[in-house]
Amino acid sequence: MRVVVTGAAGFLGRHVARRFRDDGWHVVGFDIQEFSEPGIETFIGDLCDLSAAAAVTAGVDAIAHVGAIGDVYLAASDPSLAARVNVVGTSNLIDAAITNHARLVYASTWEVYGEPQYEPIDERHPTMPDHPYSITKLAGESLILAATRLSGLDAVSLRLGTAYGSRLRPNSVFRIFLDKARRGDPILIQGDGNQGRQFTHASDIARAFASAAASSETGIPINIVAPETISIKELADAIITQFPTEVAFGPARPGDVPAAKVSAELAREVIGWSAEVSFEEGLEEFIADAVESR
Amino acid sequence: MRVVVTGAAGFLGRHVARRFRDDGWHVVGFDIQEFSEPGIETFIGDLCDLSAAAAVTAGVDAIAHVGAIGDVYLAASDPSLAARVNVVGTSNLIDAAITNHARLVYASTWEVYGEPQYEPIDERHPTMPDHPYSITKLAGESLILAATRLSGLDAVSLRLGTAYGSRLRPNSVFRIFLDKARRGDPILIQGDGNQGRQFTHASDIARAFASAAASSETGIPINIVAPETISIKELADAIITQFPTEVAFGPARPGDVPAAKVSAELAREVIGWSAEVSFEEGLEEFIADAVESR
Repeated sequence: MRVVVTGAAGFLGRHVARRFRDDGWHVVGFDIQEFSEPGIETFIGDLCDLSAAAAVTAGVDAIAHVGAIGDVYLAASDPSLAARVNVVGTSNLIDAAITNHARLVYASTWEVYGEPQYEPIDERHPTMPDHPYSITKLAGESLILAATRLSGLDAVSLRLGTAYGSRLRPNSVFRIFLDKARRGDPILIQGDGNQGRQFTHASDIARAFASAAASSETGIPINIVAPETISIKELADAIITQFPTEVAFGPARPGDVPAAKVSAELAREVIGWSAEVSFEEGLEEFIADAVESR
Repeated sequence: MRVVVTGAAGFLGRHVARRFRDDGWHVVGFDIQEFSEPGIETFIGDLCDLSAAAAVTAGVDAIAHVGAIGDVYLAASDPSLAARVNVVGTSNLIDAAITNHARLVYASTWEVYGEPQYEPIDERHPTMPDHPYSITKLAGESLILAATRLSGLDAVSLRLGTAYGSRLRPNSVFRIFLDKARRGDPILIQGDGNQGRQFTHASDIARAFASAAASSETGIPINIVAPETISIKELADAIITQFPTEVAFGPARPGDVPAAKVSAELAREVIGWSAEVSFEEGLEEFIADAVESR
């Protein structure tokens, strides 16, 4: 069985590609950026380019579409780029999946929900994203779900919790806090720090992609979030127990998503998924990995 | 005062451009297709091209962003094109509006609501579009509303009812029914014909753009729909009273939007708009115009 993982040079794509490889798939990692990874074939190209998307997906059984402008700061400063990669790019992969009768598993985000109307948020909750990142991710997701109805596409969308794990990008809150604490600089929290996040470990997310690729569910979004809610302040506190430093508070980040409790009950029911890595274990591993890789 | 009207060579854009011209604005009509219209400056270019969008909007006071892949059949057969024009193109115009401190009025659609959760549908109703046309229009709208919060953009989105009027595109239901009836061919209704539409006359929609450009409301969507609901079957019946022919029924169009009663109460409150052209008058004018232009 052959799978293309888009964005395979990135943080989450790398975890997903390795998981498929370890499960015995032939994995083609597709990215605009060069990378290498044992046991994974690489294909360097732009997913906004329909001919590249068609070439890399010829004859595949599944596509794990992780590649995106996933950096919220970049999406905010260049929404046209986010629109091109996250919407036009996704549309190209829908085309490719239909052509190849391949199953498509899409990396969406819990951030599509916006301000909670009720909690815990299940997949029927209204979607009201208000940031270029989540707006363009939702548009990609909606195009996929429409294609399952209109064009016979076989696909599911995974609405992922805030991902963390080894090789997180440098402007993620985990890396920023840890890097500051290790240098003895104060950690700056944007807002009051009470905004909660269901931090979900990249290895758990990678397993969700593998389970979703193997399942026959189609045309639905599925929340993939760990059960624990950790506030940004709790994250800072956990980091400073290991690298003591001061914690300061600044203005809230414009467009930051409000806290919300999201349910992963459907994931358990339909793809047999639930998170396995506790926040305590995941954070410990994250810190060890970051310290080691310096 | 200077306004750019995007899509000014198209059906609705032409009506909007004329309205601004008649109200005394200096109008620049921006379209990828060549056209000419008395008293309107033309600029031929692609709104997906950021440099063209920047050039045409230099120094403008307002942008009426009507240009889009508005043909639902084309959007369904080429969702990547719809994503490029409707999302990336809109993002380019957001950039242009911010740069020029220009007010942006965006042509969204009532079709963003999807299956009604309650009726009449006001602007707080959840949005669950399920067709590449309405999905990409909603993404453009969401990017605009996000930019009003994140980047100081001054903008409103008009969620338009199903537009009709002179020069409607040939694959609109009005034109198809009328052309068949005039040739004596049977009219084919897709589905049972009971799907209702709040057909809204292009001149009323053009007036809504002018009112919205002049108002200072920002960061909200506003429904712009005529109050009467006319079923597709009633439309066919009205046409065959003038050009008698048979009416036949076929399978429903995949992705066709369900009927829904939409409220234009907010438009009345915040921009003083309500529809003025009754369906009876509008249809009579449409038929006369279509017959004359042959």
